[in-house]
Amino acid sequence: MRVDVVFTPDEAGAAPTGIVIDVIRATSTICQALASGYERVFCAAEVEDARAFRNELGEGVLGGERKAVRIPGFDLGNSPREYLEPEGTTLVLSTTNGTRAVVAAAQRCERVLIASLLNLSAVVEATRAAGEDALVVCAGVQGTLALDDAFVAGRIVEELGWERTDAAEAAARLVSTWSGADEAFRASKSGRNLMENAPELELDIPFCSRESVLDVVPRLVAMRDGAAEIAL
Amino acid sequence: MRVDVVFTPDEAGAAPTGIVIDVIRATSTICQALASGYERVFCAAEVEDARAFRNELGEGVLGGERKAVRIPGFDLGNSPREYLEPEGTTLVLSTTNGTRAVVAAAQRCERVLIASLLNLSAVVEATRAAGEDALVVCAGVQGTLALDDAFVAGRIVEELGWERTDAAEAAARLVSTWSGADEAFRASKSGRNLMENAPELELDIPFCSRESVLDVVPRLVAMRDGAAEIAL
Repeated sequence: MRVDVVFTPDEAGAAPTGIVIDVIRATSTICQALASGYERVFCAAEVEDARAFRNELGEGVLGGERKAVRIPGFDLGNSPREYLEPEGTTLVLSTTNGTRAVVAAAQRCERVLIASLLNLSAVVEATRAAGEDALVVCAGVQGTLALDDAFVAGRIVEELGWERTDAAEAAARLVSTWSGADEAFRASKSGRNLMENAPELELDIPFCSRESVLDVVPRLVAMRDGAAEIAL
Repeated sequence: MRVDVVFTPDEAGAAPTGIVIDVIRATSTICQALASGYERVFCAAEVEDARAFRNELGEGVLGGERKAVRIPGFDLGNSPREYLEPEGTTLVLSTTNGTRAVVAAAQRCERVLIASLLNLSAVVEATRAAGEDALVVCAGVQGTLALDDAFVAGRIVEELGWERTDAAEAAARLVSTWSGADEAFRASKSGRNLMENAPELELDIPFCSRESVLDVVPRLVAMRDGAAEIAL
């Protein structure tokens, strides 16, 4: 089996199993929300898409951020710590980079799994169980590489122990240059943005840095009006 | 000043100074050819483009490879060791990934410099002299990251000592995970392809691994019928 990595959704790559990472913070939030009891998460790229989608559904908790903080009028932000208890059965999350990565993976992969560090072991096991080549799709930040996503990609490559493309090898090598996830996440653009825009959210970094604490494998169920429906 | 890196030509990024790398072997060959006395190099993406372009020029040495070895009917291959003495004033080189990277850089940058390890110091000095932000554009292999180009990108980032984007930081960190260029190049897809397809060309790897031995800064002069004209 072979594992490949794309550091941005635009890069070339395809495999039967796709693994999407936007670790600070969309995919960490999705994993936490589903582990806490939400039954499904819809990811919409734009704020207005999320609002319209919730209105169409007629139900759902509206979550999301711009520049790290909660969007005006939304029920919740994008901190996984806000999703420890479910406030409904459906979460509609506005996440630009994360949604774009899910859509990119859906176009190239037969199955799409959602990964963070929180559910690392569970995703690696599910990828092994699928028994086919894998492509790790990093969300990045606005089309560019993000060190936090690259770190998680590298951990997945290390844990799978499969044949590696150059990009997969690069991700695994990067992991070894930090003392751990917390250091990598603080060094990343996503981590620095979080700390600069909303110092009170700095605690999200150690929260997202915990490895394999959630036994969930969120999967892309369907695309619906441009929104990605994700469930266990 | 800030330095950014794209590991594939498709990634988002722009800066006044563009630095193109396809170290195994197109940009090493271009640097060596111009240092040896060729006056200009035209890079064409496809074999037929290169043939047609040379016919149109009415002169020129035709060079290039497919699967590492010389294209039938061409004067020379793509080994920089074939360009130690000029066999004409104009070289028309067929290089798919390299040409694509030059074109991508030309679309986003005001000036485009051609880099390899051979001319590292000279390129770094020219980038400093330009006095504006820089974008390192790695050619990669068929739209995917190539470890050999990433290594050279990291060396440029280290030498510039400027503010780094996440991708630039990743490139610099990768450098530290190898004992040197020779090890990185042998680990890369480009290096492995070379050794597998043409064992006699393995010597190109130590040749291309030599740092700052050529005092040349090839620059993109113009685009002409889809071919990139490069000169000192």
